[in-house]
Parts: sequence; C-alpha cells; structure tokens
Amino acid sequence: MNVGFFQTNPVFGKKTDNIQNAITEIRGLNADLVILPELFNTGYQFVSKEEAFSLAEQVPEGQTTQALIRLAEEKQVHIVAGLVEREGEYCYNSAVLVGPDGYIGCYRKLHLFSDEKLWFEPGNTGLKVYDIGQARIGIMVCFDWFFPEVARSLALKGADIICHPANLILPYCPHAMITRCIENRVFAITANRTGVERRSKDTLAFIGTSQIVGTKGEILYRASADQEESMVIEIDPNVACDKYITPVNHLFNDRRVEFD
Amino acid sequence: MNVGFFQTNPVFGKKTDNIQNAITEIRGLNADLVILPELFNTGYQFVSKEEAFSLAEQVPEGQTTQALIRLAEEKQVHIVAGLVEREGEYCYNSAVLVGPDGYIGCYRKLHLFSDEKLWFEPGNTGLKVYDIGQARIGIMVCFDWFFPEVARSLALKGADIICHPANLILPYCPHAMITRCIENRVFAITANRTGVERRSKDTLAFIGTSQIVGTKGEILYRASADQEESMVIEIDPNVACDKYITPVNHLFNDRRVEFD
Repeated sequence: MNVGFFQTNPVFGKKTDNIQNAITEIRGLNADLVILPELFNTGYQFVSKEEAFSLAEQVPEGQTTQALIRLAEEKQVHIVAGLVEREGEYCYNSAVLVGPDGYIGCYRKLHLFSDEKLWFEPGNTGLKVYDIGQARIGIMVCFDWFFPEVARSLALKGADIICHPANLILPYCPHAMITRCIENRVFAITANRTGVERRSKDTLAFIGTSQIVGTKGEILYRASADQEESMVIEIDPNVACDKYITPVNHLFNDRRVEFD
Repeated sequence: MNVGFFQTNPVFGKKTDNIQNAITEIRGLNADLVILPELFNTGYQFVSKEEAFSLAEQVPEGQTTQALIRLAEEKQVHIVAGLVEREGEYCYNSAVLVGPDGYIGCYRKLHLFSDEKLWFEPGNTGLKVYDIGQARIGIMVCFDWFFPEVARSLALKGADIICHPANLILPYCPHAMITRCIENRVFAITANRTGVERRSKDTLAFIGTSQIVGTKGEILYRASADQEESMVIEIDPNVACDKYITPVNHLFNDRRVEFD
C-alpha cells in the first residue's frame, strides 16, 4: 500500500489556489492514501469568528470536499484533508476522508489549541476508524497528539494507520508521534505545513517535518522544516495487526485497565 | 528539592553486596529523593520460580527494606528501590518507598515483561501517589512505561514526580519518557542498570542511560550507557502543578474523556 502526504505552505484565504495546488501535486503521485495538513485550504490564523465562518464549508457539499471527491475518483486514491467545516452557525476544525467512491466521513477535532477556541466548537463526532479496503485508518488533528487517549482509542478501535493533518508550531510532536506508534503498534502519517503567518500580533511559524512513522517507531520518512514537498512510501498495513511485543506480551491484552 | 538516581550494575544473587553498594553510594549523596533500579538487590535474570522465591523478601520485614529504612533515617532521604517481594507463596516485582520516618509503601509492577511472567504475579496494588512533603510522587516499574495509562493515572492522581526503577534492555524507553513527561507535565526519574546477564540461553544487555526529565520534556540529565554512576540535581516539583499548556489549554481539563 502506497501512503504519503503533501506538506504545503498555503496562502491564507486563497482557497481556490490552495485546493488547486493540492490537486496538481496529488495528480503527480502514485498513492493509495494521501494526507493533507490541517486547514490546508484556508491557512490557519483567523482573526475573527466571522472570518472563519466566511471561509468555512458544509461537508460534503462545499467546494473543497467536492474538489477532493473528484480528485479521489480520478486518481483512485483516498485523501484525508483538514478544513473549516460549517454546520448551521457553528464552525469546526475538521478533517474529511474521501475515496474513489466519494465522501466517506468527517472528523471534528476534539482538542482545540489556543485561539482555535475562539473560532471553532470542540469536536463532537468522536473517534472513528474507517476500513478503506487496504487498511483501517483513524483520523486525529494536530494538537490531538498531545493526549495519549486519542491515538490509544483509535488503535483500540482497530486503526492500522493514524492519519494526522497538522499545523504544528511547537517542536514536540514529531518526536512524540514515535512514542504514539510504539505504544499502539500503528503507523502514523503526520501531514504538517510550513511557512509563517502574521495576521495578528502573534507570528506563527510552522515547523514542517511532516513524517511517516512505522509500528516500532521507525521514522520511515521525515520532511524538511521549510519546503513544500510530498512523499509516498510503500508500507504493509497488516504489520499493525501484530500487537505482540514479545511472544507473551500482547499490547492490548496486557493492559490493566482495572487499575487505571 | 534534590532528586536523583543511582545507576547500578548488580551482581546476580549477591544481595548483601548489592545492598551495601547502594548504601555506600547514597551515603555520599546530598539528596531528598533517590531512585534505585528495578531488582537492584538481586539482579534480573532468574532461571526458576524457586530461585526468585529464594531471593525474595517480605516487605517491609525483609533485609533489603530494613537496610533502606535505616539508611533513609540516617540520611534523611526518601528512597524508591526495586526488589522481589514475597507474600505467602507468591512473588511480585515490586518497588518499595521508604523515608526518614520509615516504611511508606510498596508498588507491585502491573505490567510484567517476557519471562517475568514465569516468576512473578501481576501486580495488584494499583497505582498510588505518595505525598512525601516536598513533592507528591508516583511509582512505576520498567515496562510500565509502555502503557500510557500508567503515567497518566499517576499524573491524574497528583504525582509531581514519576519514580521509575527499571532494567531496560530495549532502546525505546528513554526516548518515550520524554513524551510521558510532556503529555502529563510531570518530572520523571528513570533509574536503570548497566551490565550483562547470561544466566540462560538469552543474553540480556541492559542499556543504562538512566535519566531525569523535566515537565516539558527537557532531559535534565542522562547517564552513560555502561557505567555505574549516580546523579542528583535540584528541581522545583511545584512546576508540575502547572498544567496549563497555553493560557486556555489545561492538560487535564481539556481531555475529552467522553470520546475515549
């Protein structure tokens, strides 16, 4: 199975351009699953709830999801991509999953970071695992990495691959995702962005270093800190089904949940 | 508060010598809290349940705990140390906590690794946090690190410092403990051992690299891979009380346990 990411540097607010940039890049990839960053189509640093709402879309009716659906059908690929979702008067920091047969699902970020709490509602979809044929995938977004319960829940629900759109500014996550993979014996694909946004008094510098990590914490690929780039590698997602750390230590069966 | 560890290279089965070695070293330290490795007094690689039983002790009546109690009173220090505990016909891979006023508590390792399952019973004491005056400390032993629920539970119960006696042979743990500290905003002191044991067909090489990690994942000290050594550093355990990652992100309050 060929899995990968496109590490982007979106131009704030230029949705059509950002979507087209992703389409062009993914058209050139030979992948079964591609992850795009959090809020890949809009950029990150909103300055008001109204602004976030004006760039938000209904899922799956909106421009971005529809464009990704067409691309997924054309390329016979599954895509996970972060965007601002609108439902009624509320906005969510969401990630959609689309595939060759169309729209599959949407995850609304559970753990909102810093100013995101000003624009978005906390996610209410829960953590779901999707069987896309070649693998079972779970989705979490950016700051969700900080909470070990998230990757744990996805793994316990059967995820082989954690798809992780991100807009990281702190340095900790690429390192921590290695632990997330080891402790859950899953693959993880973190699709981060690069570049700088200065739309308010806070300058946000995104750290790039998107990465694909194996079930034993191997860094299968780590991207540059500052370049727009894509990478696709071949993995065997079935490796994630083996939860035996030793012949007598099963990662899940050895848990002592009665003492947590 | 001065906290540290003594990274030892015990001689298998030579309890009196191993205990005396620890006493001599700790007498030379200026510490409020010292962590010794897992099974520091016996060595690790038992070859039968009978052998483990013959080296086991009742807690706190046994030779090792009594010696540590005397040392703790003499030096006005708290000590966490791993040993084989005997209760009736059962053995546990345990860690005792003693202080200037005597015996405080005992933790029985929840997650037994590989052949340990042949000699020991799974721990049944649960995870407790002890207020030792200058800090609240939690105890976990070696392979417990693999399960994020352990450090999480200790942190949620109020631990400022995770005391982590270990006999590590796999390379992953020192790296992963950085994540454990970040995700829980706690200090962690891993006291590992060095050396090699070849008491059966399996050669076990212990990786040393005991370490003290700060609440933001800073490696405050990391020991050599192969030398017996101790280290004591000054920390402010109150730093661990601050669970705000940003002014609006509280590590525990932001959890979405309803979706785990």
